[in-house]
Amino acid sequence: MSIMFRKLGILIKSIEKNNIREKVRCASTLPQLSSEKYNIKRKQFSNVESTDVNYFKRILGEERVLTEETDVMPYNIDWIKNCRGQSSVVLKPKSTEEVSNILKYCNERRLAVCPQGGNTGLVGGSVPVFDEIIINFTLMNKVISLDEISGALICESGCILENLDNYVRDRNLIMPLDLGAKGTCQIGGNASTNAGGLRLLRYGNLHGSILGIEAVKADGTVIDCLKALKKDNTGYHLKHLFIGSEGTLGVITKVAVHCPALPKAVTLGFFGVENFENILQLYRSAKTSLGEILSAFEMADFEAINTTVKNLKLPNPIADYPFYVLVETHGSDEGHDSEKLSRFLSKEMDSGLILDGTVTSEPAKIQTIWNLRESIAGAGLVQGYMFKYDVSLPLRNYYDLVPQLRTKLNGRASVVFGYGHVGDGNIHINVIVPEYTKEICSLLEPYIFEEVSKFNGSISAEHGIGFRKPHFIHYSKDPSALQLMKDLKQLMDPNGILNPYKVLPDM
Amino acid sequence: MSIMFRKLGILIKSIEKNNIREKVRCASTLPQLSSEKYNIKRKQFSNVESTDVNYFKRILGEERVLTEETDVMPYNIDWIKNCRGQSSVVLKPKSTEEVSNILKYCNERRLAVCPQGGNTGLVGGSVPVFDEIIINFTLMNKVISLDEISGALICESGCILENLDNYVRDRNLIMPLDLGAKGTCQIGGNASTNAGGLRLLRYGNLHGSILGIEAVKADGTVIDCLKALKKDNTGYHLKHLFIGSEGTLGVITKVAVHCPALPKAVTLGFFGVENFENILQLYRSAKTSLGEILSAFEMADFEAINTTVKNLKLPNPIADYPFYVLVETHGSDEGHDSEKLSRFLSKEMDSGLILDGTVTSEPAKIQTIWNLRESIAGAGLVQGYMFKYDVSLPLRNYYDLVPQLRTKLNGRASVVFGYGHVGDGNIHINVIVPEYTKEICSLLEPYIFEEVSKFNGSISAEHGIGFRKPHFIHYSKDPSALQLMKDLKQLMDPNGILNPYKVLPDM
Repeated sequence: MSIMFRKLGILIKSIEKNNIREKVRCASTLPQLSSEKYNIKRKQFSNVESTDVNYFKRILGEERVLTEETDVMPYNIDWIKNCRGQSSVVLKPKSTEEVSNILKYCNERRLAVCPQGGNTGLVGGSVPVFDEIIINFTLMNKVISLDEISGALICESGCILENLDNYVRDRNLIMPLDLGAKGTCQIGGNASTNAGGLRLLRYGNLHGSILGIEAVKADGTVIDCLKALKKDNTGYHLKHLFIGSEGTLGVITKVAVHCPALPKAVTLGFFGVENFENILQLYRSAKTSLGEILSAFEMADFEAINTTVKNLKLPNPIADYPFYVLVETHGSDEGHDSEKLSRFLSKEMDSGLILDGTVTSEPAKIQTIWNLRESIAGAGLVQGYMFKYDVSLPLRNYYDLVPQLRTKLNGRASVVFGYGHVGDGNIHINVIVPEYTKEICSLLEPYIFEEVSKFNGSISAEHGIGFRKPHFIHYSKDPSALQLMKDLKQLMDPNGILNPYKVLPDM
Repeated sequence: MSIMFRKLGILIKSIEKNNIREKVRCASTLPQLSSEKYNIKRKQFSNVESTDVNYFKRILGEERVLTEETDVMPYNIDWIKNCRGQSSVVLKPKSTEEVSNILKYCNERRLAVCPQGGNTGLVGGSVPVFDEIIINFTLMNKVISLDEISGALICESGCILENLDNYVRDRNLIMPLDLGAKGTCQIGGNASTNAGGLRLLRYGNLHGSILGIEAVKADGTVIDCLKALKKDNTGYHLKHLFIGSEGTLGVITKVAVHCPALPKAVTLGFFGVENFENILQLYRSAKTSLGEILSAFEMADFEAINTTVKNLKLPNPIADYPFYVLVETHGSDEGHDSEKLSRFLSKEMDSGLILDGTVTSEPAKIQTIWNLRESIAGAGLVQGYMFKYDVSLPLRNYYDLVPQLRTKLNGRASVVFGYGHVGDGNIHINVIVPEYTKEICSLLEPYIFEEVSKFNGSISAEHGIGFRKPHFIHYSKDPSALQLMKDLKQLMDPNGILNPYKVLPDM
């Protein structure tokens, strides 16, 4: 997945450099317009006029207002090529003040906007649907401060996650989140989508680790909650309104985040397992044996690993097994950690829960195995169209849907596989088909959401609601909660200009 | 502190049992009415009529509606005896439906209410100011479910924290928060005040560990966000509106919380240190040497420990030193943990950062030392009136205010001391005086808040704003954030019946 994201990052960069060949390549694979594909009606916003563009050029300068169709095109398309918007303007602010001016103007003019970070979202939340003005945060990429004792990092929202991680690693800290898209995704996008990722099990979610937020409301008001304190109980905890609301209540411009200590020892195990029931038993055992050093407990079925190995020509470090488990430890004492992991391994090899496996502390080998795991998400792209689901379920029902879908699709899909973050109850289910058809879609949806709802699960564990799921949100949110969401939207963005057609269902 | 809280718990219980002697004792120490002491004007709410009381008796039954003055009195007074309200009715609902009916009725009648958990708050948030109807949650004390694999506990809001901790400990889990008031405070109160406590350093804050909330809005609408999932990105994260808003946006009726694994090994060190600079160095060293097993890093100055030892006749396990540090580890391997702690201790005894100390894994000794630490908060009560401050500051300025206040008060206070959670940047400053005077108050306030504001700290790290601090909130919240708070209050409680005179300043 990181490889795919980096490719997309390079693609965007080369397009920005007016590389004609890439432009053509991009144009040749244009997905259908979202509005047509999903039969959406444009809301009553104003149209962007030349006077508007002139205003933006005046406040940002010519070079930070993109209007050429070929320049704007990549910003209209999401990375899994499922959604395509029709925006004609991309704005690249460099400061909170510029964002505030843009929004104040758009709000008065009733011009809709689409805030965009690294555009790595999977539910179409980061690209426009119609002609929303794209506000791209790429140029707001400065680190403002880092307190090396407390671990509090303050930075602008356009900082790329991997760059931040490299920055704080040089100071013996790590970012509290890690995800496949790290080379492209931006911290502001991470915050506004409440990104989960690979090590939530250990470092918790962003509602816990984000210390402060600066955001701009639809009317241009700057809300400064950028405290870098671990404890601050002075009134309503407003930052959480912006974390996970996907740019529909405000646009995040700065983030303060708590960075944990860089682990001195990292060890990784990759194991073959007979069946899912054994994975659950192994998880319980890992929690007991590895305790506080457990930093990731991931699973993938044979089909997930096999598809990735074949499509992306990546090596599988062990033989073929029905299931795979990746266990990672982050600790402060290599001797203690490897003793714990060896004890766990030897116990579970004896018990038969682990059939075979490899354990390594070598950074290059760790990277190779993580790369295999992270690449699963995008591995189906080269084969055709991917239906991607991202759900939370009680652990005993975690894997149920995968065999159910295989039966239900009855050979119509090239492959159906499941993988994900066992420790968080979060499974990703990918269904790869030669091409998108409404027939297959109707077999999958709302069936999957109905099943998840039966178990009081979440129809979107970490990807968000975006453009693709508002009409399914009721499977996970009760009517009074939905009404309160709508009331909050009305309060904070009465003209509805912020990321319209996203998150909120028409009610 | 836990002792003090337990005493209060027993006091309330005995009063409930119509123990006349206790009633008289309580009556003899009545604090001044909050409205007079702080010169507050009653807002335009309706007065409670006999028809209202009859309605409540009809829906709750006679015995769950307290109206006798002596019965109601303890619910009108906060535990540090700083605030006294004038309520004439205490309601004790047993279900969400009853809470909903009460609020719907009160909202229509424009009757103000004060939700009350264990009444252990320190800023007067849990007692009425005028005649607000007290909704007490003591009888909503059922555990609903516990998933032993994922650690998700669902319970009613009136469950006492210590009871929950005992319940989950029997199942190899612990509650993610621990505080001195645990024997009396309730999980609903913990959630609505975003309680911090002693092990936030390790297990994070409640915004991270609360999985779901059920709350009732002012108009009686039940907002069901009671998912017990670690990951759920389906729209706005509404639960955070209720966490930390101190009952002013809604009343929490159920909580889902993530319980971490019970540590197999607990070790505690209590050390004497020469000066605060050495505490900071020791903290950096502990983070490196103890890493993931560090579960608490607390400090107290000599005056804090000495006051507690003398006033409460508690033993100090080591000799007198200018400063004390308490270091606790939670881990999964006793051998590894004690090796890490011994290495740390021996290194820092050699370096001179630790002057003397004791290290123990014996539960009884651990309890004795924690009891000393937890008792500091209430130790001043027997000596007179306590001014209590609870602030967050950057670590390099963490202790600055204590010597500054000693100089400023110039002998007017019996004692001034500082103690707190170094790992969270949160210091508690207690100023003990023979009795409350406006002169001393005016030397302390707003001086302390101005100093905290200079360093971009928080004027209330974990205690909240409550009744005592709304007029100081601007030292920590900027005007646009305050306006958004006010807008949210107007949206969710347009008649302002929920916990009036609290949190929000008059604007």
